[in-house]
Amino acid sequence: MDTMEPEPDLELQVAVAKVSKYAVSESGDTVEVIERPHGGLSLVMVDGQRSGKSAKTISNIVTRKAVSLLADGVRDGAAARAAHDYLRTMRGGQVSATLNIVSVDLVTRTMVISRNSHCPAIIVRGLENEPQILDEPSEAIGIQPRTRPVISELAIRADLHVIVFTDGLLSAGERYGQRLDVPSFVRDLCHRCPKEACARFLADSLLARAVELEHSRPGDDVTVVVVSVTGRQQPDDVRRMSVRFPI
Amino acid sequence: MDTMEPEPDLELQVAVAKVSKYAVSESGDTVEVIERPHGGLSLVMVDGQRSGKSAKTISNIVTRKAVSLLADGVRDGAAARAAHDYLRTMRGGQVSATLNIVSVDLVTRTMVISRNSHCPAIIVRGLENEPQILDEPSEAIGIQPRTRPVISELAIRADLHVIVFTDGLLSAGERYGQRLDVPSFVRDLCHRCPKEACARFLADSLLARAVELEHSRPGDDVTVVVVSVTGRQQPDDVRRMSVRFPI
Repeated sequence: MDTMEPEPDLELQVAVAKVSKYAVSESGDTVEVIERPHGGLSLVMVDGQRSGKSAKTISNIVTRKAVSLLADGVRDGAAARAAHDYLRTMRGGQVSATLNIVSVDLVTRTMVISRNSHCPAIIVRGLENEPQILDEPSEAIGIQPRTRPVISELAIRADLHVIVFTDGLLSAGERYGQRLDVPSFVRDLCHRCPKEACARFLADSLLARAVELEHSRPGDDVTVVVVSVTGRQQPDDVRRMSVRFPI
Repeated sequence: MDTMEPEPDLELQVAVAKVSKYAVSESGDTVEVIERPHGGLSLVMVDGQRSGKSAKTISNIVTRKAVSLLADGVRDGAAARAAHDYLRTMRGGQVSATLNIVSVDLVTRTMVISRNSHCPAIIVRGLENEPQILDEPSEAIGIQPRTRPVISELAIRADLHVIVFTDGLLSAGERYGQRLDVPSFVRDLCHRCPKEACARFLADSLLARAVELEHSRPGDDVTVVVVSVTGRQQPDDVRRMSVRFPI
């Protein structure tokens, strides 16, 4: 397997940006990133029903279940189904959560996007193309029997950007009569993003715009995740991870 | 609990930098960061015995065990003991791993450092002070019965930096007759680090120096983790996470 791997000339960038609902200290959104046992990584984003502590508990248990299965090498679709079954069993079908999994699979050289959410995923494949919207109907986990994810698989190539988010981004500005047109906002941003920090720029810009539309007092938790593949920018073979937040 | 929390005027920064042994695609070092269920985060760093695939498998199972216990709210010392017992049971006491856990506990407002490693941890408390070396004898997990971690707990304050690493950093340059004096290198760096990216600067500089001492062909996996608390730099309440590596 390793001997067939092409010389790396691409770079993966993942950026997560999150804010809590105004005046609520605990976000009901949870994001975790793990290494996949056969190479690459998976990112799990969960939005628990309602906000505050109860939502946090729900999003934590769903995230833990999905992450632990992915870490065992379970395929993404099965992990999403299992997370659904688990939540539905634990909470008697009374509590829902949205679940997104974005995996970078270095064995198949694909990006796999699993949606259990009414929020679309936005895909940019090459800056010359319009953003694509993955919005096939998809339901949250935890309520109906046998809920399954909607899965898309994309070949890894340079200038591929995958953007997923929780519904706080979609509803931002609504109560003030404005809404964020995510695809067109993304299209404009892509042409301006610095190559060495493209994912970071996209995630931060989207979140900042959402907070602005909410007059700096978000009415819901908002999470934005961007996974970008660019031509290789960094000269070294270093794997880097950073976390930053006020405490 | 939440109502007693002081207004945040500090910022947490975590930076991880990793390289694999030269010409080996899989690192035997694994690092994962998770949210703690009562607030804050924990970082788990494991170096599996030997290098390549077998080391990766070991470091993965130890990391998974520690992370899943910490996510359940298990205290750090118990999680480290359990990871030891688990590895020793699974591998009949034949395989060792080093384990470090660094937790930022926002309930107690402390940083908790657990070492099961011969590598010291380096602490900087205020730039006016010399780096401290936490090097109390500590043994790797997996071999002896009833191995326990060496634990240190520090109050969270501005200009606190905690640096942990795997033994690839200690041995860097050895075969060329040079060694990295980590505490003195850190002392010099601390005075030059940009406040808004202090942890990143420290981790990248330490790793780059280790790779340089190995003439760009590291003889072992090298991982550096820096957890910094600084005066608040970012103007917003956004939680950010970034990952970046060549693929």
